[in-house]
Amino acid sequence: MEEHEVLDRIARRRARTARRITDARITLAHGAGGRSSQALLESLFLPVLSNPLLAPLGDSAQVPIEGGARLAFTTDGYVVKPLRFPGGDIGTLAVNGTINDLAVSGAKPLALSAAFILEEGLEVAELERYAASIGAAAAAAGVPVATGDTKVVERGKADGLYICTAGVGMIDERVTLDPRLIRPGDRILISGAVGDHGMAVLMARGELDLEGEIESDTAPLHDLASALITAAGDSLRCMRDPTRGGVATTLNELARAASVSIVIDEASVPVHAAVLGACEILGIDPLYVANEGKLVAVVAPEGAERALAALRAHPHGGEAVVAGEVRGDPPGMVLLDTAFGGTRVLDTLAGDPLPRIC
Amino acid sequence: MEEHEVLDRIARRRARTARRITDARITLAHGAGGRSSQALLESLFLPVLSNPLLAPLGDSAQVPIEGGARLAFTTDGYVVKPLRFPGGDIGTLAVNGTINDLAVSGAKPLALSAAFILEEGLEVAELERYAASIGAAAAAAGVPVATGDTKVVERGKADGLYICTAGVGMIDERVTLDPRLIRPGDRILISGAVGDHGMAVLMARGELDLEGEIESDTAPLHDLASALITAAGDSLRCMRDPTRGGVATTLNELARAASVSIVIDEASVPVHAAVLGACEILGIDPLYVANEGKLVAVVAPEGAERALAALRAHPHGGEAVVAGEVRGDPPGMVLLDTAFGGTRVLDTLAGDPLPRIC
Repeated sequence: MEEHEVLDRIARRRARTARRITDARITLAHGAGGRSSQALLESLFLPVLSNPLLAPLGDSAQVPIEGGARLAFTTDGYVVKPLRFPGGDIGTLAVNGTINDLAVSGAKPLALSAAFILEEGLEVAELERYAASIGAAAAAAGVPVATGDTKVVERGKADGLYICTAGVGMIDERVTLDPRLIRPGDRILISGAVGDHGMAVLMARGELDLEGEIESDTAPLHDLASALITAAGDSLRCMRDPTRGGVATTLNELARAASVSIVIDEASVPVHAAVLGACEILGIDPLYVANEGKLVAVVAPEGAERALAALRAHPHGGEAVVAGEVRGDPPGMVLLDTAFGGTRVLDTLAGDPLPRIC
Repeated sequence: MEEHEVLDRIARRRARTARRITDARITLAHGAGGRSSQALLESLFLPVLSNPLLAPLGDSAQVPIEGGARLAFTTDGYVVKPLRFPGGDIGTLAVNGTINDLAVSGAKPLALSAAFILEEGLEVAELERYAASIGAAAAAAGVPVATGDTKVVERGKADGLYICTAGVGMIDERVTLDPRLIRPGDRILISGAVGDHGMAVLMARGELDLEGEIESDTAPLHDLASALITAAGDSLRCMRDPTRGGVATTLNELARAASVSIVIDEASVPVHAAVLGACEILGIDPLYVANEGKLVAVVAPEGAERALAALRAHPHGGEAVVAGEVRGDPPGMVLLDTAFGGTRVLDTLAGDPLPRIC
């Protein structure tokens, strides 16, 4: 099938299944990464921005350049509240998050950009700390911040600061990563314990009567992703980083994109005890909580063992697991085999339990 | 001289001449593009983000890629108030502004990214209009929005919406553009009338008791820049787009970067009558007012005539002029031969006359 036919087919399917935006005004749910975010994207942005580069809606766009190479290009806005939390701050998050969008697209990150929106009255010393975090995270990852911009808005028109980063990288030509390559029988790998970042931020707000030692998992995953590519080769179908909306939302996106079902074994998914405890008290499923240092990989059965071993051998993947597998039916659905022996649907998040966590 | 020696020399000169940030808190002046913005960049961001890609501080970074080609990479935040104004809106501005940063770096734009920060309560219909503007501006320029992100912040934590765009392009290998190549005798070209954008936004705020028909000049300049490169060839030293801080700030940056002086003939600089009138009433020099569809080019004397002809032959350059020339002394200064026959220093903007215009 020619590329334009593939794109036409995507467009037609998307038009049939697109979520509709029904609200008259923007709500926090439109930014939470779940169903409302998808509706905003699919029924507001896509129709007017339509183009072949945007159409696949991956974590990064793939931009063909001279000589046949492909550039990965991605962007993210960071509006986390509070600006600092155990394990990191808005600066580390912005650097690692953008590196990770490139990494799960199979790209070697080349450079980052950072656009700052500062609120009048922000302490210069505080800004200095976040700038230093950005510098340290970029240096640790070996990916320079090559270009930037700073704007200042009046007091009360921001929340300290927002950072928008973009990143460019060269796509590893060894593999083709695409959720449409997912087939029944493929294995779902998760690179470690889920929910750390979202719960660390929530606890850091100090609004909850909870005490605990939860640290954000924010980390750059390009080296882990590269190790996975090397180990799994062609059996690697695709990777994603389960940020907003958590692992459950990522799996739903994959199941929809590939028209397959995904079955997850709840007991196999690692969750740190403090995160599990806090989630239980708050009535939140950790599978919906944001991660900033984990990846989800879909691997053909023959490569699953090698892939798991490669993840576990890496400092960022020590707790990696095979958490489930792909089935044919019902298409577009994610099912959870629960610890209690039953099965339930793990749907896309409809509401907005955790705003401003990334 | 080796590249690292050049970079060392830049770093040493910058350390000697760096503007210091003396404020304890961020003020609107830090975002106005003048002296305070430079201080923030030079004494806060550069020391912690230091790397060879960021060091040249051009409108775009130059990122070397496989095969010897160079990628241009740039970002900008858009916080304009009001969101719509005669001639455009935040969407057209975001698309054209990022294209122009690539264009004046001598790059052919490949793709844009757009990160949206939305305020809870923003009307969906209004967002739809800005998204449509982005789509239309991108289509008109032939540069796709390839990737995006949307975040929502609580009511009162933004001002409707902010947009951060980034852009990537391939640098035209026909020329090397660098302000350090500027030499005494070079000519300063301006592609048209100055001050339209800033005054259009200021009037659109409705806070002034002024009536007038001033339209923003927002336009994509990649085609104009390409025509200029073709016409001027190696005699083209560098290009800049004089946005925040206007032509005066751009010229000061060039004079500092090249350690030369620049003399501008005030009478030669085109200013539309309505802009001039509004500036006179408000006591603002149009040379400090933002443009969003103009470029400043420095051209060696032998290429100046061809360069001017190429600009004038283009729809976006019909009012282009040779506005001044480069001299040796005093280094780092911009001088204005005024319409009244005197000469005065056209210094970098210290204060903040026009916040939130881009």
